[in-house]
Amino acid sequence: MRDQMTTVTRFGAQQAIDAKTKPLGALGRLETIAIRLALLQHSLAPRAESARICVFGADHGVTDDGVSAYPRAVTGEMMRNFDRGGAAINVIAAAHGISVEVIDVGVDADLDGLRTITHASVRRGTRNLAREAAMSPAELDDALRVGTDAAHRTANDGVQLLGLGEMGIGNTTSAAALLSLLSGKDSVATVGRGTGIDDDGLANKRAVVERALTLHRDCGLSGREALRRVGGLEIAAMTGAALAGARLGLAIVVDGFISSVAVLAALHIARDDSPERASQLASALFFAHRSAERGHGLALEACAAFAGCDATPILDLGMRLGEGTGAALAIPVLRAAAAVMRDMATFASAGVSSSSQSAARE
Amino acid sequence: MRDQMTTVTRFGAQQAIDAKTKPLGALGRLETIAIRLALLQHSLAPRAESARICVFGADHGVTDDGVSAYPRAVTGEMMRNFDRGGAAINVIAAAHGISVEVIDVGVDADLDGLRTITHASVRRGTRNLAREAAMSPAELDDALRVGTDAAHRTANDGVQLLGLGEMGIGNTTSAAALLSLLSGKDSVATVGRGTGIDDDGLANKRAVVERALTLHRDCGLSGREALRRVGGLEIAAMTGAALAGARLGLAIVVDGFISSVAVLAALHIARDDSPERASQLASALFFAHRSAERGHGLALEACAAFAGCDATPILDLGMRLGEGTGAALAIPVLRAAAAVMRDMATFASAGVSSSSQSAARE
Repeated sequence: MRDQMTTVTRFGAQQAIDAKTKPLGALGRLETIAIRLALLQHSLAPRAESARICVFGADHGVTDDGVSAYPRAVTGEMMRNFDRGGAAINVIAAAHGISVEVIDVGVDADLDGLRTITHASVRRGTRNLAREAAMSPAELDDALRVGTDAAHRTANDGVQLLGLGEMGIGNTTSAAALLSLLSGKDSVATVGRGTGIDDDGLANKRAVVERALTLHRDCGLSGREALRRVGGLEIAAMTGAALAGARLGLAIVVDGFISSVAVLAALHIARDDSPERASQLASALFFAHRSAERGHGLALEACAAFAGCDATPILDLGMRLGEGTGAALAIPVLRAAAAVMRDMATFASAGVSSSSQSAARE
Repeated sequence: MRDQMTTVTRFGAQQAIDAKTKPLGALGRLETIAIRLALLQHSLAPRAESARICVFGADHGVTDDGVSAYPRAVTGEMMRNFDRGGAAINVIAAAHGISVEVIDVGVDADLDGLRTITHASVRRGTRNLAREAAMSPAELDDALRVGTDAAHRTANDGVQLLGLGEMGIGNTTSAAALLSLLSGKDSVATVGRGTGIDDDGLANKRAVVERALTLHRDCGLSGREALRRVGGLEIAAMTGAALAGARLGLAIVVDGFISSVAVLAALHIARDDSPERASQLASALFFAHRSAERGHGLALEACAAFAGCDATPILDLGMRLGEGTGAALAIPVLRAAAAVMRDMATFASAGVSSSSQSAARE
């Protein structure tokens, strides 16, 4: 690996893609993604066939304050739905040959009987972030480690792409509060309708987040401390998975609003370690789609501004479901990009005449 | 089939998707696509696993006027590249489990030795559309039939999704002239840089198209006659494939600029037959991506305005290669949409609690 690392440069990867049998730049963003995968894997023959979505599930104490259109029991019910293969992420991943691992980080339900679920519950849901810190320091460490472990299992299985997904009634509230703390923006910018609350529900949800911000804001918070105070167990697990996955050389495919906020927290935590770690993490992140959930655009901008991420989403299909569904839809684009870099012929190898004019890049 | 046809209505398909275990509308455009596939296949369990890209290749007499950055020989050279599996469409289709059929409709090269190519050459390239009609009526009929035959092979092989692709040096010039004739817009709106011509090349290409429009415009042209005068053999084959594919119940996945203009011609030809045929064709069309080639936006608008097509492209990745590469990238989205409609559990079947609030569709 170390030898190859010195041989793949951005310039070399750009030259490799420009030599392929196509007009310069004609594959648009596919070329940018291909170059990023080559740099990430230190190889001009990057692989992206093997992909996994890790879906982290947990409950949220803040649901006591009526922030969701669905009852808290839905988190556990959806874990059973995942187990039986009936949820959106199950059927979309199956259509694309992507494996799914569903991990209980803290669902408030008895899920012991579910055989396909990874049981790693830290606590049956967080405390209410609008009244106290959502997690203790030890609980945060445990939740981060659940993500770290999932990333290690993924890498050990030879998987190249790790998609981050989640399930947790109340988690758009937690993510909005976390985004507010990390970006300095108020609840109007970060709180949306989540699963589909009405106008009264939205006003209440904003008030709940404002209460949380009043309680937690004025502390010069680190990324880690912000995550502990207003995050969720599944959000922290995604943060841990992103941090560990990037260290392991995985491409991290970020789903929508919740997972983008989780990786924003990961970027803050990585930066507190060193600028190089933040940069390494940023280079591993592929933002899958532009969610219809309010606040996602701000989360993407924050990731780009904070760590120079390529935070323009690959897809824009008006989705706002979570579960990793957006990641599962973007993964075929990454596979195509890797195939272009790895397998396409060059003008020289295929005996194709090159352009007779100065090539205008549009 | 006939019995089922009467049972799947737009309302019924919408009800089916709304019963799935997800907030109302949370899968965005995936839901619209799922409903369209259900209506097209007269089934609430639509299939989209089996997909094929038909790549039609031909040369263009108008290349004599220096409209491309690449020499005419590249069309034949790229057919050899397709045959060896080294082109972008080969590697992207392989990454996604999509079959590719490459069809010589009129390449000016000796391709007899190529074993994987379908040999259906009508003529070694069109006449120069800036000086005379590109095709005779018999040649147009032959080229349309090449596409019809390809659609029949596709349907006979049990394929559900037919992607349209093309290769032909000079074919953005032909497509621009055809779009001008069908839309009434001048060359500034329809001519772009194609494979990457410089500013002088662009000025020349516009002048060539304007000469063609002066020669062919003032005739009250039908879609068929416009296609004959300024189209290409591969463009006419795509037109034929779209017309036949829609009759056969295939979903037609339209690639970029050239293929969008080909289906615009198909919509005109279908309308000359009957409004019902145009409507049937429109309901079968799935526009894969927004090409970076100038004129594509206009072509999409013209398809929407003329026949009520859902002409918002699925992807927007800044691509402008052709070959069906955009179609190959959009096909996984169609597969996911079909899987959602077909395989997802409902709230009732999965025992998941439904929303306690009025569901606000965002």
